[in-house]
Amino acid sequence: MSSLSFLPEAVKNLQKALSKLQGVGEKTALRYVLYLLKYPNLIKELINSLQTFANDIKLCSICFNLCEGDKCSVCLDPSREKDKICVVETVQDVISIERSGEYKGLYHVLMGKLSPLKGVTHKDITVDKLFERCKSCDIKEVFLATNIDVDGETTALYIKKEISPLNIKITRLAVGIPVGGEIEYLDPATLKRAIKGRSVMD
Amino acid sequence: MSSLSFLPEAVKNLQKALSKLQGVGEKTALRYVLYLLKYPNLIKELINSLQTFANDIKLCSICFNLCEGDKCSVCLDPSREKDKICVVETVQDVISIERSGEYKGLYHVLMGKLSPLKGVTHKDITVDKLFERCKSCDIKEVFLATNIDVDGETTALYIKKEISPLNIKITRLAVGIPVGGEIEYLDPATLKRAIKGRSVMD
Repeated sequence: MSSLSFLPEAVKNLQKALSKLQGVGEKTALRYVLYLLKYPNLIKELINSLQTFANDIKLCSICFNLCEGDKCSVCLDPSREKDKICVVETVQDVISIERSGEYKGLYHVLMGKLSPLKGVTHKDITVDKLFERCKSCDIKEVFLATNIDVDGETTALYIKKEISPLNIKITRLAVGIPVGGEIEYLDPATLKRAIKGRSVMD
Repeated sequence: MSSLSFLPEAVKNLQKALSKLQGVGEKTALRYVLYLLKYPNLIKELINSLQTFANDIKLCSICFNLCEGDKCSVCLDPSREKDKICVVETVQDVISIERSGEYKGLYHVLMGKLSPLKGVTHKDITVDKLFERCKSCDIKEVFLATNIDVDGETTALYIKKEISPLNIKITRLAVGIPVGGEIEYLDPATLKRAIKGRSVMD
């Protein structure tokens, strides 16, 4: 985009900043900039909400979910089942599971997953804090909802091994055919797990 | 996304602001927010560049292109051909034409186009300023680069009619087959114009 040298510096700088967002290229960033030109109020709204976001958002001291105070709304909610912890890799996963509406317990966000190949060890994620919670609180179930990939499975196995002496029920996300999925096009690995995990029909 | 009520207000507000950008939905906006969580420096960079953008960016007093001072870099550039004005609808069009590298004259950004059906008249766009420029400056060519659609053609015809008494050469973007286009799949309207406008091969 060297032919855009005629653009004012302020335009190029904003374009550069926006293009650092995930999945935003230079062209999209420039589209955003030119759109903002038409909506000066949106610029103000963005500045204010970015500032509030930077100042207010913290991670929950218990579960590392997003929060504005010391504890997140899930940990503070008296209606949640306090004896269940769902272990996820990221805040995004909390959002996905909340959307499903199927889970009513607490969370623990690992902020990553173990990855021996990438050099990510238990010290780089919040897994030790999870073990503390399992030991100090009256937890009946730890529900492992890490991803079904090599690192996610490694992490789940590691947590299972560490927790098993504590006499806590350990569950894992079911692996199988997605809703609407067709057996014909399913990969063999998933189909294998779906057959292995087949259940008695009610 | 009502199931996301557990998210902190600061997250929801930033998501709402970002989702107002062109082509950004609630899901993409939330992805941006969660990405910013990992990069606090990018938040600062965005705030600063948005502020500078809001404070510094103005429209050129001559041609309505983007600029930081009173006149844009094209109007200030001594190497541009000062007797040619390329008339475009938007700043985006200036960027596209600059990218082509084919035009070395000045610009005039209309900030829209005439649209009788939408009630856009010559008072809503900068066309009167263009006529002033044509009368007061020594302009030899007005190159009409409005879009090839109903309103763009209407605008081009209107400008042509108003300028014709001034003895200025009036040119229009060529209509025809795009580079790499195939005749077989071309719409009849374009093909009609491409045949009508056929030129002698050198």
